Amino acid sequence: MISYQVQSEKGFTDKIGELVCMLEHSRAVTITEVAELTQEELDECESGGNSIGMLLSHIAAIEYVHQVISFEHRDLTEEEMEEWGPALELGEKAQQKYHSLSIDEYLDVMEAIRDQTLELLKEKDDAWLYENREWPNGVSYNPYYLWFHVMEDEISHRGQIRSKLRAWNNKAAL
Amino acid sequence: MISYQVQSEKGFTDKIGELVCMLEHSRAVTITEVAELTQEELDECESGGNSIGMLLSHIAAIEYVHQVISFEHRDLTEEEMEEWGPALELGEKAQQKYHSLSIDEYLDVMEAIRDQTLELLKEKDDAWLYENREWPNGVSYNPYYLWFHVMEDEISHRGQIRSKLRAWNNKAAL
Repeated sequence: MISYQVQSEKGFTDKIGELVCMLEHSRAVTITEVAELTQEELDECESGGNSIGMLLSHIAAIEYVHQVISFEHRDLTEEEMEEWGPALELGEKAQQKYHSLSIDEYLDVMEAIRDQTLELLKEKDDAWLYENREWPNGVSYNPYYLWFHVMEDEISHRGQIRSKLRAWNNKAAL
Repeated sequence: MISYQVQSEKGFTDKIGELVCMLEHSRAVTITEVAELTQEELDECESGGNSIGMLLSHIAAIEYVHQVISFEHRDLTEEEMEEWGPALELGEKAQQKYHSLSIDEYLDVMEAIRDQTLELLKEKDDAWLYENREWPNGVSYNPYYLWFHVMEDEISHRGQIRSKLRAWNNKAAL
């Protein structure tokens, strides 16, 4: 059941636990919206833009790249870019790669990455969230922002998934 | 300038300040994406779904209704529903009401509601976030969730605004 209380999840320090609660709430809503989709709904990208399958692969990829940045202080290797690049950048390559995959295949990847995130966050404490870091362009950020952004990006694409499904249903009703 | 550090905003208790930081970050990104839109872009809803103007009015309305629920422990009055109902429910009434308005008119309403939110949050402390409450259907929630949801709803609709603009630009490029 989806929880409507933000509170610190057990097994984490206080603020990391709250961030996890928000990340997990966002994910639970996403899963609710896509769990029953048909193959056609997952693959549809004729109307332009990204298919729902592509968006789900993007959600997993964004989370993976934020693991690498936040926990390993590095960017993706060439090999990792080979694997995750299409999902990160979306567009044509993603359209070729993320097609005819079942909803379970998408959800399994999302879950595996999320499990890693939670394991890695368990080893950190609240002070880590505020670690002051700098991007190569000199702009400051902290890991708290990075994980806020993972949530933000998922919610934003979930909004797009909703629009696509609404348009799809309206078309079907004509 | 948009900040990429989640940290407690001054003038609030610790956790409320962080929530404010996330709400304000989300808003800053929204404003960046819509500030330069043309009247045509704000009003377009031929492709189905809600125009960007309607979505901006919805973002303000959702925030207002969460003020009323979280700070006043009540639902909207009939008078308030008269004013905010179309923006909350979207659809045809919203389409009639939110049309030919300038971007500044939308942003001014959003800002006025946000200023009220910040004033009201200044009077609360972190313990208030965790106040255990119940909806009429028996489901528990806390004010922390309500304000997380205000952010979640804005980000979700911002994702839809992005899709609309991308589709618009692709069409223009044909």
